[in-house]
Amino acid sequence: MQSAEIIAIGTEILLGQITDTNSRFLSEELARLGINCFFHTTVGDNPERIISCLKRAVSRSDIVITSGGLGPTADDLTMECIASAFGSELKTDEAVLVELKEFFAGRGYKMPPSNYKQAMRPVGANILPNPRGTAPGIIWRLDRAKLIADGLISGQGQENGASFSTGTSTIITFPGVPHELRAMWKETLAGFLSEQVVGETIYSVELKHIGIGESSLAEKYATLLEGKNPTVAPYAGRGECRLRVTAKASSREEAENLVKPVVNQILSESGSLCYGRDDDSLESVVGDLLRRSKLTVALAESCTGGLVSKRLTDVPGASDYVGLNLVTYSNEAKLKELQVPAAVLDGEGAVSEACARAMAQGVRRKTGADIGLSITGIAGPGGGSEEKPVGLVYLGIDSGQGTDTKELRLGNKSSRSEIRYRTANESLNLLRLYLLERQEKTFEN
Amino acid sequence: MQSAEIIAIGTEILLGQITDTNSRFLSEELARLGINCFFHTTVGDNPERIISCLKRAVSRSDIVITSGGLGPTADDLTMECIASAFGSELKTDEAVLVELKEFFAGRGYKMPPSNYKQAMRPVGANILPNPRGTAPGIIWRLDRAKLIADGLISGQGQENGASFSTGTSTIITFPGVPHELRAMWKETLAGFLSEQVVGETIYSVELKHIGIGESSLAEKYATLLEGKNPTVAPYAGRGECRLRVTAKASSREEAENLVKPVVNQILSESGSLCYGRDDDSLESVVGDLLRRSKLTVALAESCTGGLVSKRLTDVPGASDYVGLNLVTYSNEAKLKELQVPAAVLDGEGAVSEACARAMAQGVRRKTGADIGLSITGIAGPGGGSEEKPVGLVYLGIDSGQGTDTKELRLGNKSSRSEIRYRTANESLNLLRLYLLERQEKTFEN
Repeated sequence: MQSAEIIAIGTEILLGQITDTNSRFLSEELARLGINCFFHTTVGDNPERIISCLKRAVSRSDIVITSGGLGPTADDLTMECIASAFGSELKTDEAVLVELKEFFAGRGYKMPPSNYKQAMRPVGANILPNPRGTAPGIIWRLDRAKLIADGLISGQGQENGASFSTGTSTIITFPGVPHELRAMWKETLAGFLSEQVVGETIYSVELKHIGIGESSLAEKYATLLEGKNPTVAPYAGRGECRLRVTAKASSREEAENLVKPVVNQILSESGSLCYGRDDDSLESVVGDLLRRSKLTVALAESCTGGLVSKRLTDVPGASDYVGLNLVTYSNEAKLKELQVPAAVLDGEGAVSEACARAMAQGVRRKTGADIGLSITGIAGPGGGSEEKPVGLVYLGIDSGQGTDTKELRLGNKSSRSEIRYRTANESLNLLRLYLLERQEKTFEN
Repeated sequence: MQSAEIIAIGTEILLGQITDTNSRFLSEELARLGINCFFHTTVGDNPERIISCLKRAVSRSDIVITSGGLGPTADDLTMECIASAFGSELKTDEAVLVELKEFFAGRGYKMPPSNYKQAMRPVGANILPNPRGTAPGIIWRLDRAKLIADGLISGQGQENGASFSTGTSTIITFPGVPHELRAMWKETLAGFLSEQVVGETIYSVELKHIGIGESSLAEKYATLLEGKNPTVAPYAGRGECRLRVTAKASSREEAENLVKPVVNQILSESGSLCYGRDDDSLESVVGDLLRRSKLTVALAESCTGGLVSKRLTDVPGASDYVGLNLVTYSNEAKLKELQVPAAVLDGEGAVSEACARAMAQGVRRKTGADIGLSITGIAGPGGGSEEKPVGLVYLGIDSGQGTDTKELRLGNKSSRSEIRYRTANESLNLLRLYLLERQEKTFEN
């Protein structure tokens, strides 16, 4: 099995000014391809230290991926350091230079002289195109035996439990800008790596679950989790769980055919516990269901303060099913805008099943939406009591044909933001389950 | 100057299952103390690789900080690896064992046998207490000359541009749980490091600015930026900028006295460009201003879809100044709920100064709040035109004595979420500036 490591280059990471999210993305993608990643290293914009990290990495790992240091300024040193570390020279790549000039011409101005260096690559390296920016990367397969013979690396790379004095190491460079790195990975590198380096095509599907914990999910699919091809692995997320089904094969089609029956089995056995796959979010899935069934929803939020409305409208085109949402934070607003009876507010209180019910009914009537969804609870850190602790939340959903409610107890040790986030998840999921049930009834009739 | 490096230990980071935010926190804190951080390394739960990383780090850095691998399970290897790397043995610390047993007794059950290992430390190391969990850390000052003589490290540590064959290296371990690590840093380690290792007390204040870019801020304070003690450094954030003023002295009081006049100078020269310091957020500052002036606000949001309401209510106690907010996403909602004239919606359109003005007036009248704040714009990615491009936003603020509006052009290349976030920042800032002005007028009268 191939081993990889990742080197993030940039003093701003070592100063704590930015979080390195590239290494996590790359690690997750490597794991998806079945490539072991043994080290992450972050190093600043210092040539001596960059070179020592590069040499160590090439001597101990089969694949070395760098991010950062490809820009046009004086502290962008990745290419110079790679050339110097592995005994090559920098040379202008004429094709890249033409592309760079066209990039600037397309924006109506002349290329600044500093950008010339972005067309330079170590002699022997191939260009990795960057479809989103001016800094292309390189892919360069290095022969370790030759580097050792030339005295450039030590050949003492024993750290992965095996001697790496022979074989090759492939170095791949990315710019540090996350969206450029991600686009380059997906559009050009992932296929190359799986076919050329791993020698196989890897295909995976992620099935997103809510309403079931990681250990219950693992138990439910214990037999599948033992499978070798495809493999099935559970991952815990924030208030949700994912099952990743991954197959290896000599072609994409073959890999897809291995994944498909397992995905279908999980979809059938998980039922509504599985809310979507891959890039789906609860809000995008709810949005699709609303749009397909030509229904509209109106929110009456209290403790979430607008978070559920914000998440529903994170999805472009949400105006198809959202017209008016209310954040009724005060009792007065619940009374006046939603006609929650004063007797409920004075008796059971604003955080009660009765209040959630009245809020859902009230917001639906007021707005004329097909569905009313309400949220009322105690997000903390203050405001809790023994009877009604922090983390107690009531949800209500009303369709004119009936009202359902749900009680949540999210624990008084969670933070305000965690309680609000999980409440929003549960609200969106309640709406999703209602829409699924309604869809089923429509099919039956 | 002291040099440091950080080692994050945990296979889950190398698999991309979690993002390592500890290294960023530690880096920022080290920078605050004036300690150079030259490397971050992440290594999995593998003793051979952990030991090689530890030895390299101790041979090249004065301070080595690890996070992770202090738990009770078999793959928590940090202590064993440290003892083995530096020629020591693990021994039970009786005081820690008593504390551990008390921790479990306090929760009403017996300590599981696996937790015994959390009371072990390498002979020679001191305990770093963990006030939030069961895993304490250690602080251990190692003598490099002795380690080299014993053949435990190589003495070839030339990577920081100096020979490290002599002197000491202090190794410090933290658990991987972020809130435990942060609490341990703040409550016990920061003071120790600044006094014992750095030999000085470091004190810093961050002044948060909005409405001025990083380069303009740097230009405005060019003279201060050249200062040595205190130093003043600008940092760019998401839609804001920070100026950090840091002084070193032999006592906290002396350091504070060095910082104070510079902070006062910046506060006076920046005026309302500086919205707060340290842990302040725009929403917490706006909340304080509202509470102090006993005013309430009501929102009418369109393109932000509830984000501004969500941020206002992120602050505990926001019910003091928020009663009812509206997300009027459709034209119908703007017309019916806010009495935006049909002529405005049909003529200038929903994304217009006239509409923002009418929305602010309408929401104030409807809710009876002291201030009405409105947001209407095009968050994209669709819905833009040549005349009204994506990123065009109008804000309105009405107090009953007059209405102000503001036009934003946030660029049609920004993402939907970036446009919504920056719009929320600008809305909160508009409200802040209004409240400051009103406060001033009150003082004048």
